[in-house]
Amino acid sequence: MFNAIVSADTLQDTLDSVSVLVEECKIHLEEGGLEIRAVDPANVGMVDLSLSAAAFESYETDGGLIGVNLSRLEDIAGMADSDQLIHLELDEETRKLHIAIDGLEYTLALINPDSIRQEPDLPDLDLPAEIVLEGRDIDRAVKASDMVSDHIELGVDDTDELFYVDAEGDTDDVHLELTAEDLIDLTAGPASSLFSLDYLKDMNKAIPSDAEVTVDLGEEFPVKLHFEIAEGQGQVTYMLAPRVQSD
Amino acid sequence: MFNAIVSADTLQDTLDSVSVLVEECKIHLEEGGLEIRAVDPANVGMVDLSLSAAAFESYETDGGLIGVNLSRLEDIAGMADSDQLIHLELDEETRKLHIAIDGLEYTLALINPDSIRQEPDLPDLDLPAEIVLEGRDIDRAVKASDMVSDHIELGVDDTDELFYVDAEGDTDDVHLELTAEDLIDLTAGPASSLFSLDYLKDMNKAIPSDAEVTVDLGEEFPVKLHFEIAEGQGQVTYMLAPRVQSD
Amino acid sequence: MFNAIVSADTLQDTLDSVSVLVEECKIHLEEGGLEIRAVDPANVGMVDLSLSAAAFESYETDGGLIGVNLSRLEDIAGMADSDQLIHLELDEETRKLHIAIDGLEYTLALINPDSIRQEPDLPDLDLPAEIVLEGRDIDRAVKASDMVSDHIELGVDDTDELFYVDAEGDTDDVHLELTAEDLIDLTAGPASSLFSLDYLKDMNKAIPSDAEVTVDLGEEFPVKLHFEIAEGQGQVTYMLAPRVQSD
Repeated sequence: MFNAIVSADTLQDTLDSVSVLVEECKIHLEEGGLEIRAVDPANVGMVDLSLSAAAFESYETDGGLIGVNLSRLEDIAGMADSDQLIHLELDEETRKLHIAIDGLEYTLALINPDSIRQEPDLPDLDLPAEIVLEGRDIDRAVKASDMVSDHIELGVDDTDELFYVDAEGDTDDVHLELTAEDLIDLTAGPASSLFSLDYLKDMNKAIPSDAEVTVDLGEEFPVKLHFEIAEGQGQVTYMLAPRVQSD
Repeated sequence: MFNAIVSADTLQDTLDSVSVLVEECKIHLEEGGLEIRAVDPANVGMVDLSLSAAAFESYETDGGLIGVNLSRLEDIAGMADSDQLIHLELDEETRKLHIAIDGLEYTLALINPDSIRQEPDLPDLDLPAEIVLEGRDIDRAVKASDMVSDHIELGVDDTDELFYVDAEGDTDDVHLELTAEDLIDLTAGPASSLFSLDYLKDMNKAIPSDAEVTVDLGEEFPVKLHFEIAEGQGQVTYMLAPRVQSD
Repeated sequence: MFNAIVSADTLQDTLDSVSVLVEECKIHLEEGGLEIRAVDPANVGMVDLSLSAAAFESYETDGGLIGVNLSRLEDIAGMADSDQLIHLELDEETRKLHIAIDGLEYTLALINPDSIRQEPDLPDLDLPAEIVLEGRDIDRAVKASDMVSDHIELGVDDTDELFYVDAEGDTDDVHLELTAEDLIDLTAGPASSLFSLDYLKDMNKAIPSDAEVTVDLGEEFPVKLHFEIAEGQGQVTYMLAPRVQSD
């Protein structure tokens, strides 16, 4: 049983956070809210999302697992105005999701969860450096780096206490330094890793420019990007595997 | 003789209402105003439009018939700001239309009306159900249906006194019900017909979202959609033939 | 040595004025400001631009010549908000330009000026007619003419004291007349020349709609279009060779 009402923008933000990495996903219907974990086909980028029951206008379930086509569900949610309410109700017999928006009823065929790529285990990493910054700074760094290269180095200068971004192209380079003053918070530590820009660009699309993003970094370790959606009732964590750094 | 001045947005709305169905049309220059009737190449969708002389700033004619390329005339009208005036004057000798917008003169070669597809006779149907609703509700129904199917059923539930829209896709369905309360007006009667979404999508493009649209429906009969443009000085009626319903 | 700070919109307007004609250009770093001259590959359209040192927040140079890829530099400037400051510093050893925008540093490889098409000499023409008008009127004339033809005649009617634009297509024509009243200023004289619309369309893109544009015209002579950027601290002159007029 699953019967919930949620605002269109909360549903859209939730779906967008996952659809930048995968086309289909499993959604765990838990008593406390929705849980989604997914990894891209190349096993490089992962997302771990939870949307608390408190993010909903009303939320009832006795548990369950459904598989959805994300772009289809995004299209449906996109028909609503951002402040309109969307009613979701699972028909367990037909395995269809009934989606109602102000009198309009959409019956969405679900996907067999067994046919969807297995959910990843997000490793519990103890990363030495933590940077907290605004989404717009990630956006600037990613867009500038994308002009010169297809990969990007993120690091922390332990001595000067600053976060840096480096992208080296064939002819041009991009470098960004943000000191503790420019950041919301910085826990310095030895950290420097190289990442694929393609993945960071996709993740960046889902990060609101005014979001407070926590970045956990290590030496040639995965990066973790964490931010909130749904006014703090939703938690999104991306994890991106590093590229091997060739010197 | 034809010599008229009209606001750019009135001219644009007039042309847009016809150009969603055909590329060229005949325009009857009548003393009371302009008259246009046209049918698409497949003989499925028709438009009947009249724009009263009262919709013009000034309007003079002793009658006549001209043939125009609609997209060309739309491009010209599109050069004006929406509240600018457009001066139209027919040169009967050269069969060209002089179009003046604030000092800019465009000389448009007309099309021989005999080379344009014959105008349709709009059958006088006595349809049992009439629904009056806002253009935005047609827009919602058409856009949602388009996500799942290429045809759409419009009908009236005579017992429950409601207007419904049904679109059935291979996996997903869309259903919209609007009761008398949701509608501006409803004359219930036995009505249910299937239509091609392609045509309704085109017609929908020309229907303003805040227009009051009168929909006349029957059992496997054509649908008539009627709305006003030019602040009530223009009347547009679309008629769309039904698709054969296979049960 | 070159070390300067300039607002993003001033830099963008400068680059846009040149990039409509060429992809790469030489920039002369003079004590009084920047100087750019360039001609398109077909030797038909030329631009002569100067941006005074006064247009910069700060400006220091001991002279020099650099070659730049314009679209690349435009992309970089485009990352800044229009009122943000951009810091430009030449590294003479590496022949790279360091571009800093609020903590973000972009290192741009310069182009060897010797590899860039030679700069044109703008002939000193004494043209008999001069029209001063708003950029938006050039925009209207160019866009309307483009609907019917690929060339455009600009001329002055010496007797009636008016500036006219003529474009003749296979079936349709466009004609625009602007009298002294419609213009900011008019010095009438014998003038009528035919130009390629492709070039005028490109130049038109860089002319702000509210700019005061001075147009110098003759009989089958090049046209000169002059306007200011950077609140009067930048001067842009386009020169366009006429097409041979066949009667």
